[in-house]
Amino acid sequence: MASIFTKIINGEIPSFKIAEDERYVAFLDITPLAKGHTLVVPKKEVDYIFDLEDDLLQGMIVFSKKVAKAIEKSIECKRIGIAVIGLEVPHAHVHLVPLQTVADLSFSKPKLKLSNEEMEQIAAAIKENIN
Amino acid sequence: MASIFTKIINGEIPSFKIAEDERYVAFLDITPLAKGHTLVVPKKEVDYIFDLEDDLLQGMIVFSKKVAKAIEKSIECKRIGIAVIGLEVPHAHVHLVPLQTVADLSFSKPKLKLSNEEMEQIAAAIKENIN
Repeated sequence: MASIFTKIINGEIPSFKIAEDERYVAFLDITPLAKGHTLVVPKKEVDYIFDLEDDLLQGMIVFSKKVAKAIEKSIECKRIGIAVIGLEVPHAHVHLVPLQTVADLSFSKPKLKLSNEEMEQIAAAIKENIN
Repeated sequence: MASIFTKIINGEIPSFKIAEDERYVAFLDITPLAKGHTLVVPKKEVDYIFDLEDDLLQGMIVFSKKVAKAIEKSIECKRIGIAVIGLEVPHAHVHLVPLQTVADLSFSKPKLKLSNEEMEQIAAAIKENIN
């Protein structure tokens, strides 16, 4: 069965998309730790990030850098943190999280609840800063 | 002033080293979240990971993959999680953390206290599994 991320990539599930190329897609996390929390996902459905072939893995971090630089320009933060856990959705994904403190990268803290309108505004702001 | 990681790289501060090549070094985190928690650091002292030039950034994740595969073979875990925060030591570093649950990647939880002997044993076990 296709993962939830594959369904997002295929447009079967809506998302707040930030960026896309032939190999990767970036969209807002719908249960964000901070405003601008974004997921970067390879279109190829591989469960574990370290099972990605080297070329796809290294391209993913360079794609993530491009997205992170756009988030930084759009969201007030000290820098963008990275987390990969991978125990829940069986499709490799990088969390890019705008950080003010170390605690902002804690997945045990309550998630933000943002309206669709706020999510759309955030996605639009980041998209404007891509490239 | 040289960062603490540059001092480790230069051998001025001892470490439990796992792997090294021309561009990167991996050693055990001395305040680990889990047994086998390892840091991957570029020898070039750059504060923010997303300020690394693309080539050095992408090489760092491929180097991290090699180290992660060795940790997996040495330490009981479901997979290796990745975290990059970067608000404390101004020298880019990737945390590789053996995970059993999502909570294992929480930097607010108490760190393990392991003896030097245990750290040496862990480092030796991982080193044996490199490549």
